[in-house]
Amino acid sequence: MAGVNLGIIGAGRIGRLHAENIIRHIPKAKIQIIADLYPDQVQAWAKDFDIPRVTADYREVLEDENIDAVLICSSTDTHAAFIIEAANTNKHIFCEKPIDLSIDRIKAALAVVEQRGVKLQVGFNRRFDHNHRKVRDLVAEGKIGDPHIIQITSRDPSPPPMEYIKVSGGLFLDMTIHDFDMARFLSSSEVEEVYALGDVLIDPAIGRAGDIDTATITLKFASGAIGLINNSRRATYGYDQRVEVFGSKGSVLNLNDTPSSAILSTGEGVISEKPKYFFLERYKESFILEMMEFIDAVINDADPPVDGEDGLKAALIAVAAKESLKQNRPVKIREVD
Amino acid sequence: MAGVNLGIIGAGRIGRLHAENIIRHIPKAKIQIIADLYPDQVQAWAKDFDIPRVTADYREVLEDENIDAVLICSSTDTHAAFIIEAANTNKHIFCEKPIDLSIDRIKAALAVVEQRGVKLQVGFNRRFDHNHRKVRDLVAEGKIGDPHIIQITSRDPSPPPMEYIKVSGGLFLDMTIHDFDMARFLSSSEVEEVYALGDVLIDPAIGRAGDIDTATITLKFASGAIGLINNSRRATYGYDQRVEVFGSKGSVLNLNDTPSSAILSTGEGVISEKPKYFFLERYKESFILEMMEFIDAVINDADPPVDGEDGLKAALIAVAAKESLKQNRPVKIREVD
Amino acid sequence: MAGVNLGIIGAGRIGRLHAENIIRHIPKAKIQIIADLYPDQVQAWAKDFDIPRVTADYREVLEDENIDAVLICSSTDTHAAFIIEAANTNKHIFCEKPIDLSIDRIKAALAVVEQRGVKLQVGFNRRFDHNHRKVRDLVAEGKIGDPHIIQITSRDPSPPPMEYIKVSGGLFLDMTIHDFDMARFLSSSEVEEVYALGDVLIDPAIGRAGDIDTATITLKFASGAIGLINNSRRATYGYDQRVEVFGSKGSVLNLNDTPSSAILSTGEGVISEKPKYFFLERYKESFILEMMEFIDAVINDADPPVDGEDGLKAALIAVAAKESLKQNRPVKIREVD
Amino acid sequence: MAGVNLGIIGAGRIGRLHAENIIRHIPKAKIQIIADLYPDQVQAWAKDFDIPRVTADYREVLEDENIDAVLICSSTDTHAAFIIEAANTNKHIFCEKPIDLSIDRIKAALAVVEQRGVKLQVGFNRRFDHNHRKVRDLVAEGKIGDPHIIQITSRDPSPPPMEYIKVSGGLFLDMTIHDFDMARFLSSSEVEEVYALGDVLIDPAIGRAGDIDTATITLKFASGAIGLINNSRRATYGYDQRVEVFGSKGSVLNLNDTPSSAILSTGEGVISEKPKYFFLERYKESFILEMMEFIDAVINDADPPVDGEDGLKAALIAVAAKESLKQNRPVKIREVD
Repeated sequence: MAGVNLGIIGAGRIGRLHAENIIRHIPKAKIQIIADLYPDQVQAWAKDFDIPRVTADYREVLEDENIDAVLICSSTDTHAAFIIEAANTNKHIFCEKPIDLSIDRIKAALAVVEQRGVKLQVGFNRRFDHNHRKVRDLVAEGKIGDPHIIQITSRDPSPPPMEYIKVSGGLFLDMTIHDFDMARFLSSSEVEEVYALGDVLIDPAIGRAGDIDTATITLKFASGAIGLINNSRRATYGYDQRVEVFGSKGSVLNLNDTPSSAILSTGEGVISEKPKYFFLERYKESFILEMMEFIDAVINDADPPVDGEDGLKAALIAVAAKESLKQNRPVKIREVD
Repeated sequence: MAGVNLGIIGAGRIGRLHAENIIRHIPKAKIQIIADLYPDQVQAWAKDFDIPRVTADYREVLEDENIDAVLICSSTDTHAAFIIEAANTNKHIFCEKPIDLSIDRIKAALAVVEQRGVKLQVGFNRRFDHNHRKVRDLVAEGKIGDPHIIQITSRDPSPPPMEYIKVSGGLFLDMTIHDFDMARFLSSSEVEEVYALGDVLIDPAIGRAGDIDTATITLKFASGAIGLINNSRRATYGYDQRVEVFGSKGSVLNLNDTPSSAILSTGEGVISEKPKYFFLERYKESFILEMMEFIDAVINDADPPVDGEDGLKAALIAVAAKESLKQNRPVKIREVD
Repeated sequence: MAGVNLGIIGAGRIGRLHAENIIRHIPKAKIQIIADLYPDQVQAWAKDFDIPRVTADYREVLEDENIDAVLICSSTDTHAAFIIEAANTNKHIFCEKPIDLSIDRIKAALAVVEQRGVKLQVGFNRRFDHNHRKVRDLVAEGKIGDPHIIQITSRDPSPPPMEYIKVSGGLFLDMTIHDFDMARFLSSSEVEEVYALGDVLIDPAIGRAGDIDTATITLKFASGAIGLINNSRRATYGYDQRVEVFGSKGSVLNLNDTPSSAILSTGEGVISEKPKYFFLERYKESFILEMMEFIDAVINDADPPVDGEDGLKAALIAVAAKESLKQNRPVKIREVD
Repeated sequence: MAGVNLGIIGAGRIGRLHAENIIRHIPKAKIQIIADLYPDQVQAWAKDFDIPRVTADYREVLEDENIDAVLICSSTDTHAAFIIEAANTNKHIFCEKPIDLSIDRIKAALAVVEQRGVKLQVGFNRRFDHNHRKVRDLVAEGKIGDPHIIQITSRDPSPPPMEYIKVSGGLFLDMTIHDFDMARFLSSSEVEEVYALGDVLIDPAIGRAGDIDTATITLKFASGAIGLINNSRRATYGYDQRVEVFGSKGSVLNLNDTPSSAILSTGEGVISEKPKYFFLERYKESFILEMMEFIDAVINDADPPVDGEDGLKAALIAVAAKESLKQNRPVKIREVD
């Protein structure tokens, strides 16, 4: 295949971001059609990018035999159904995270993907981030020996809107799921047991919505390594995204990216820049790279770098974490699988 | 009181360190006598410091009415008995950590200290470290608001000798006890529940001795904050001692001290110095400061900055951690108290 | 004007870079034609970008009345003549640095630009770099008070080919000219006197070609501030681009950008990444931003952010530096103007 | 010689500092006598340190046959005469910098030192600083190849009192002399030519006293390397002491030391500590080490690590810099020698 004809289902913030990245950086992929519940809003910018068709009906995307692959960027509750329909119409699939809030529905979707032989990549974009990838590469090269302790600090600058929180599936499935995937990515080992602590320390409204805003999760890996994740929905200084892998031969960690490297020294102190504000700034390049690798996988008929199994496993850890928090005890993955 | 006459019981590595620090930096304190099981070895260096008496019998120290205060730097199993005897002879006491491996014996010792009205300071020297103290000061000034997450990375450069490990009381009472105290110090809150994971990832001999060499501990504080401690007995790059307190208004963390700030850039990479090798280098100043504050407390009849209660509480957390590891479940402090 | 029709004269490495940036990031500008001495080589990639015309004859660009603005990216010896011709055909002009090696020819070109009322922007891209711009912004906001000392470290990873060096006009007009512009940009003051030292410490062939490979330049500003620039043609660890402005209220400096923030700690040392390798990586964003601002200036009929006067002044400092090196004495700008 | 009997001439701030360091850290040296113009002030603290004699008459120090070595810590104008007298009474000498403001008087003093065969160490304490020494060691080990560019940033937190400035010999002989020595130390090469720029940018009173408060100096080394020094009498953020040596194989630089490594991140920014405030904090250890090495040189009859020749050479560079500033031209060292 020389090029890929793409359809996009759901073109809110993240769908539009993918569209722009493809147009600017991936000439081998052509976006032929976008389906969105609000086609007029999409039309406004799609025109500037010479995208031929915008529709309110996602079926137009799936029924178009010219389309090789679809990006599913709609709300989480639609992912599994769209994956199944797309697989059944022989489209390759890029789906945003999480695949679904229900393990059963994820498995049902993956079964169809498997059966139809289409490719499925899940949007764990952080694997493509220069800082995290470098850590993973150094670990994979054996520079730190066998991993013993994996630490992930992952804090948002501010909580999402309450309406979003209510349908998000909770902190672990919405936010920490990235960190669960990162833990697997960095350790090259599977999580066997989870212990989660969490609380409402930032906004009581989050608690009233049945969610938490602050959490730590301990992971026990098959390899013997231990993982520690800490999350907050509000870091006043910006998006805090750091990892460390400590092992038998050493340690590798990364720091936050900043808008500039300028350091101001005055009588008040020595002041450097806050981290890049949020995920659109911080993970900008990673969104381009994940899409490039998806398009390459389609063109070269290769395995996508993050697949449905990865999506399932991160969700299993999230569900186990939820259960652990509820019962205040360590929960094994196999208890929820 | 204008000056303090001191006796030292136990003058191995740490006892000698205190002696040197006092002689160099605390002219208000005079070491009058040292008791050690190997008086000849002590005599060799005590002479250079003009220390008048060295004896094999600790009772000489306690029976000397001229002595105002004693430093108990003998092996852990002797601490509680020496505290009791010293209190009964009206000496103020500086005792190395841990007070004892048994909660009951600690309580018995503290009861006598209480009853006799002598001062007791416990050797949690890290509270006096410039880096940790600065973090604590910024937290106490409210700069980061209410603490939500406390992270402590505490890794030794290499395991102690096996003979030491066998009598150490295990990782939590020997090594992590410093971190438990640090967690209380940084958070200004009490730990209510502990969840510990640990494994033998470095040296199977440590496992055969019934101990672990790698651990993570999750702490639930009364304030709602969560603490995460990670330990290793072997960080190939040296002594790794970092803390972070994250809260409602921001975060404060510290980094390792290094022998110099030199940074070498070549075709091979950009290379800076490893952390200071171990606790004698890293915490050098803190040992001087803790002793200065102890001497000041004695002279000014003031409360010592770290007292027996602090020693007891850290030990309780350690014992709860041990229990948690054994049972693989979170354990409340009140279960072991 | 809603959009800009562009022609490019000279499409080697830098011309092609501008073309790609415009196509990806500046939809308001359309490249209509490219003239290059090797049109076949250009055609190979221009086709992928849907650029309508490629020609060997630059006059086709200038004679096309549809073209609003030209980018002059040909060799330095052609700049002045092309500026004059472009101005005479009423094109706005973006010209790579330096405008010319001769002050007289620069002035002649600027006179025509002035007379024809076209816009001229000079390719001092570093002004648009996030790190340098942040330093400049903090200085401009008065955060460091009045600048007293400006330090610029500017070192290439390796010397250019000898054929390039021979026609480059020498280190000061080829390489340091960026730093001279940076010095003016950071200080907001004009240079009055220059003292240059230089030597051949890297490659004797550079000396045989009549050039130097290592230099330091001291600048005396009208404001009383002093500037210090140091240059090398070969920093084994990569492209070293740092500035500092020290003033009455403090100091601001920046550091190099690196491919990632990963830090590896092992028994060997603590290793972080080398700076981004060279200007294409390091100044990637700045090339996009300078072009965006040029296009905006054309569309909004505004002054370009770096103009012909800036090009002249940097060249004057370079010529004075050359003279200073020759005579081994400080040389005033007005001596060479 | 097993131990050294010391006399101190001049016990102001620096003399007292040496006394305390010797008493705390150098048991092999015994301070037997201190001479000071204000013996009562000295007596107040000398008693605490069990220093046997304090006198107003420096001749008592020199005439005491029991004294092996003297520390000359009196005002600069007395150094040369005291060196000569001390050498003539066969005392080894540690003399604070600068030896004298006059090259002739320095040479006269060195001649007597030479003739009498006593040791003379000059108080260039920065050579003993951990950060600078590490840079020098890495250079000496060949890690950066041949030095090409040496940069020294040396800025005081605030100007000394005007009375001091008036007798200081000017910025170059008082303050920069440390940097001139550092340049020689780091490069292992001799300075051949100096170009100095300087101005009064901080306090006009300094100008009225005939001095400058801001300066940059360019050094040409015999090796071909170039040195750049920048000085200010007032860095609002504290004592700024950094060096860099750039060479054929790489670069090594150091950063300022800070009171702690704590980093605070809030909505306001990311704030770390200012440099240690001034030389007593920053160079604390270096003063101990230089004295240890002096005492060792005396005991072992070895060459002191910084000798009279070093003192002379730094002074020659300072005098050349003064001349350069006056004449606004590069001045060769041999012009002032």
